[in-house]
Amino acid sequence: MISFTCDYSEGAHPLILKRLQETNLQQEPGYGDDRFTRSATAKIREATGCPKAGVMLLCGGTQTNATVIDALLPHYGAVIAAQTGHIAVHESGAIEFSGHKVVTLPSHRGKMAPEELKAYLEKFYAAPSWPHMALPRMVYISFPTEYGTLYAGEELKALKSICERYGMPLFIDGARLGYGLASPAADVTLPELARLCDVFYIGGTKVGALCGEAVVFPRGNAPEHFFTIVKQHGALMAKGRLTGIQFDTLFTGDLYMEISRHAIEMALRLKKAFADKGYPFYTDSPTNQQFPILTETQMKALEGKVLFEVWESLPDGRAVTRFATSWATTPEQIRELESLL
Amino acid sequence: MISFTCDYSEGAHPLILKRLQETNLQQEPGYGDDRFTRSATAKIREATGCPKAGVMLLCGGTQTNATVIDALLPHYGAVIAAQTGHIAVHESGAIEFSGHKVVTLPSHRGKMAPEELKAYLEKFYAAPSWPHMALPRMVYISFPTEYGTLYAGEELKALKSICERYGMPLFIDGARLGYGLASPAADVTLPELARLCDVFYIGGTKVGALCGEAVVFPRGNAPEHFFTIVKQHGALMAKGRLTGIQFDTLFTGDLYMEISRHAIEMALRLKKAFADKGYPFYTDSPTNQQFPILTETQMKALEGKVLFEVWESLPDGRAVTRFATSWATTPEQIRELESLL
Amino acid sequence: MISFTCDYSEGAHPLILKRLQETNLQQEPGYGDDRFTRSATAKIREATGCPKAGVMLLCGGTQTNATVIDALLPHYGAVIAAQTGHIAVHESGAIEFSGHKVVTLPSHRGKMAPEELKAYLEKFYAAPSWPHMALPRMVYISFPTEYGTLYAGEELKALKSICERYGMPLFIDGARLGYGLASPAADVTLPELARLCDVFYIGGTKVGALCGEAVVFPRGNAPEHFFTIVKQHGALMAKGRLTGIQFDTLFTGDLYMEISRHAIEMALRLKKAFADKGYPFYTDSPTNQQFPILTETQMKALEGKVLFEVWESLPDGRAVTRFATSWATTPEQIRELESLL
Amino acid sequence: MISFTCDYSEGAHPLILKRLQETNLQQEPGYGDDRFTRSATAKIREATGCPKAGVMLLCGGTQTNATVIDALLPHYGAVIAAQTGHIAVHESGAIEFSGHKVVTLPSHRGKMAPEELKAYLEKFYAAPSWPHMALPRMVYISFPTEYGTLYAGEELKALKSICERYGMPLFIDGARLGYGLASPAADVTLPELARLCDVFYIGGTKVGALCGEAVVFPRGNAPEHFFTIVKQHGALMAKGRLTGIQFDTLFTGDLYMEISRHAIEMALRLKKAFADKGYPFYTDSPTNQQFPILTETQMKALEGKVLFEVWESLPDGRAVTRFATSWATTPEQIRELESLL
Repeated sequence: MISFTCDYSEGAHPLILKRLQETNLQQEPGYGDDRFTRSATAKIREATGCPKAGVMLLCGGTQTNATVIDALLPHYGAVIAAQTGHIAVHESGAIEFSGHKVVTLPSHRGKMAPEELKAYLEKFYAAPSWPHMALPRMVYISFPTEYGTLYAGEELKALKSICERYGMPLFIDGARLGYGLASPAADVTLPELARLCDVFYIGGTKVGALCGEAVVFPRGNAPEHFFTIVKQHGALMAKGRLTGIQFDTLFTGDLYMEISRHAIEMALRLKKAFADKGYPFYTDSPTNQQFPILTETQMKALEGKVLFEVWESLPDGRAVTRFATSWATTPEQIRELESLL
Repeated sequence: MISFTCDYSEGAHPLILKRLQETNLQQEPGYGDDRFTRSATAKIREATGCPKAGVMLLCGGTQTNATVIDALLPHYGAVIAAQTGHIAVHESGAIEFSGHKVVTLPSHRGKMAPEELKAYLEKFYAAPSWPHMALPRMVYISFPTEYGTLYAGEELKALKSICERYGMPLFIDGARLGYGLASPAADVTLPELARLCDVFYIGGTKVGALCGEAVVFPRGNAPEHFFTIVKQHGALMAKGRLTGIQFDTLFTGDLYMEISRHAIEMALRLKKAFADKGYPFYTDSPTNQQFPILTETQMKALEGKVLFEVWESLPDGRAVTRFATSWATTPEQIRELESLL
Repeated sequence: MISFTCDYSEGAHPLILKRLQETNLQQEPGYGDDRFTRSATAKIREATGCPKAGVMLLCGGTQTNATVIDALLPHYGAVIAAQTGHIAVHESGAIEFSGHKVVTLPSHRGKMAPEELKAYLEKFYAAPSWPHMALPRMVYISFPTEYGTLYAGEELKALKSICERYGMPLFIDGARLGYGLASPAADVTLPELARLCDVFYIGGTKVGALCGEAVVFPRGNAPEHFFTIVKQHGALMAKGRLTGIQFDTLFTGDLYMEISRHAIEMALRLKKAFADKGYPFYTDSPTNQQFPILTETQMKALEGKVLFEVWESLPDGRAVTRFATSWATTPEQIRELESLL
Repeated sequence: MISFTCDYSEGAHPLILKRLQETNLQQEPGYGDDRFTRSATAKIREATGCPKAGVMLLCGGTQTNATVIDALLPHYGAVIAAQTGHIAVHESGAIEFSGHKVVTLPSHRGKMAPEELKAYLEKFYAAPSWPHMALPRMVYISFPTEYGTLYAGEELKALKSICERYGMPLFIDGARLGYGLASPAADVTLPELARLCDVFYIGGTKVGALCGEAVVFPRGNAPEHFFTIVKQHGALMAKGRLTGIQFDTLFTGDLYMEISRHAIEMALRLKKAFADKGYPFYTDSPTNQQFPILTETQMKALEGKVLFEVWESLPDGRAVTRFATSWATTPEQIRELESLL
């Protein structure tokens, strides 16, 4: 049985395992002071075109979101997200757990509309009672979004400019960053994206690593004592080498983008397979998550042969499903799916 | 240069890397629902003699302490620890960050004295103003302690019985559990220790794994919705297979205790090496951390050849140092140290 | 100039000031152990028909909401409120500040619809990913609502029965409780309301007191150590006599309901004055808050003569306004307003 | 029976009640925007010699401590207090509840020694592991202390200068400020004290008010959005007039210091009464709290006639007791006590 359930079904890219093996008995200091983390940092600075970037390697997505948001928000600050944003839905209230309200705006296939953000802020500060409310002090978006869609460069610019006007950092959740940047639909590069936000992270867990997310403060603008904040959030790894080696490998010789492009190639073939058979889609996703709409009969037909996720049940009995590809998806898996449709 | 700085200087036990390799492309569900985690759980239940144990694999020590303590404490509850307890000193206020006071009792070479715990609680509830104070609702100890010492079975029994009288769970931080149980000075086995507390964890990061701590609720007594609590703390791994494979390997064929015994053997040789040369010790540690006291000249002599940690500077210019062995320490490293002393 | 801005524009009911005066030099213990608080507790138990009720006098509304919600929610728990609920909008993120997510349902003129609550919960637990979300563990409603509307007894019963099915306490914010119960539109009495929820509070600040809200756990079901939780939230008054005397006075000889009825009488006259002149209303409120819709010209005409609140600007330039009466509103004030319209 | 149990046994100074009466039906805006609060602010600015001071009136002591400390500390910050500091002992973990560790230094009859603070900080930052610890970012002292003692101006200067070196605000808990400043032993005035710290509060609850503490940021240095922070902590009063009127009255014509001097006069007579009879004291307190040591027989003799607090039981069966005077203590009460001794 093949699984398109998610993009974290397999282990790690073979080169990562190889490197773990080669360096295994090398003695290194803990807590991110090892040579691999230093090397990974240097390579990420180069790849992002941000020579002064603050880089910190954390372990997982929810942890990274909670830590970054709490680190950047003042006590009274709320973070604004699209209604479908990961932090607003699937993180067990981790943001609220550290004391912060998540304010939601309408989601347009996963995206926040700059003009709606602007309107929200104008209305917020027009209300005389605004000091009685949690103050919006940060904007959170994901690239690609939870629905596989991408912000255009112009949209990012618009969001950034609103954020600047209101003194709010713009935070990009890049849990699947590679799969966004590698899409033919992307009109920003990694260095461009880095310039268009105040902090973002480069997802490892879903893009070839066993675990790990690289937080980047593009202009060296990490908050003071970020190391201690990370520790306080339980997010500091004793064996920093584990994330160090992984990101060092992923950022050696374009590997990160290479495997991301492969995943997108697989995704577009998968998409075509569904489209060719006349399946409608919930969103027109150009990234590694595809959302075909299946009837009950169609789902039954795949049972026991292909695993995928049911995203949402529609009133007419059909379901929005999610098929995800990754760095590990093989042409054979796609072919098998094609033959089953 | 050889390093005795800590017990997390190397990667993972070779069998773990081998197993990661072998299973790498096997597709598995995320969040701990993979077959490796299930297998590890079964093996840990057997090794602890707790067939109904709740087992949850987390990533690191501070994270595990913060999550377990917050999960078990009510809003108004404080946790009692020895003054040298890891949660009281080196975790950046992670316990307070989730809202709980850490109350400290005197440390006797890292240990809490049962009679002092009893006296503290009696005095606490004798004060008419106790409802104005954070209520002690949990006891935290480490085995072995931060000073390498071990609680005897009788001491654990005494602590547990006090805890029961006051309705408090007893939590054992086992970040170095193997190195405690494998010591010739230990008079409790893993199943005995499991019976003598309400929750503990089996340290992986310091005992052969790349990362990972296995939380055990011996009598299936995990708090309701512990999974969601773990997620809320940012402590849930997407690729649960990573910790699953590691603990599955460590608990196959006694590997965990085997490599722990090796570390202790190395530690006792290292201890003897210092003792033979007349070095005094700060504590008489029977586990993998040794605390010889060195003069400045002696420290200088090792400079550039051996790495170790300076634990505390003494008024007379000497320093308490820490030399840690681990599963990865080799007889050659010990010999080299011997020849240098 | 007269003000209908809010229901906390004046000091306290004269009988309260009189009683403060009479008892001023009487020495009493602090922290709610005074004889006035004990007497108030007894009277509230009688008025609510709950002889075993746990009663606790706090100082203000946001404080009471934050304390009660935090006291009843587990770490992973969220509270459900209507989108217009006070805790969701105007409390500066105080609920999130203590770690809890506020989940919002559509607001029907301030009210939550039982069938929408039911549908939400069914959908929530139908999603396989629910353990990755903050779990709904409490329902918050206000009586009357922020829009002056009232829940019918049948609606409360329906909400309570859903809450019971899901093991969630139902919490009624009664900041304006008297103004709800005294309305001719109310079809529940105080004892009935007490039976239909798990915890509620009797608003003092807006109903004749200088400050103070009386939290009632109708069946003696206060959480363990609630006193300590209140203290931890900074909500415990040293001079408990201040709230004790106030509630003791308000619950002597039906004063609380008497002054509430007066406010409602004034409100209905005010409502009639607007209606008679053909002003439309945003909601058909039967309580002390009235929401007439005014044109710019109409608002200008009142400028400098009458104070009121602009609740919401409408796209056509008109505004939803709020006129609030209280125990202190005089017939003269209403007459003056009438003559101005 | 007369009570010396505490300094909050009675209601409020008669002039406060009179003023509440006179202004009762005057309509005023809520949340501190009333004319009384504005007037109180102006008078406090004058009395403290700080024309630009930020002044905020809160309700009670624990609330004020928790709000101010949380407002000034970054996420990773700890507050340093003497071991007997109110925040470290009797506030139910309210500081930890908002996420911050309280680090304690030895208490010298309630006081922190500047040289010990200095030594602590030097040792802290000398430890290479300091980024793994909660960072000390604020110093909390009380004036007078929980043991009735006072810091000399020189001591305050020394503490302030250490705080400045380490970039930490110095916070003075003035719950009993008047009783400190009015003592003949005080060598600082209110304006001097204001200059020697970064934030302090003027206690009302214990010095003539029904409730209320006036937080003062002497140089207009309140943190941004302090109003919203106060609201978030549930510490914002709807009827700000209540605290406004009280502080306006207390700071009209030197009333605050006048009634404080009276309390001190009473305290010194009480002290003399004990001393004349040969009773030893636990501390030589020059303020309104006196700590005579009584034998069991002596305590028995007062039973049923005089109320006081048992502070601490001594090993020899005697007890440290606390007798507190206040603005409301009468010469007759002191005479009665004298005759009983």
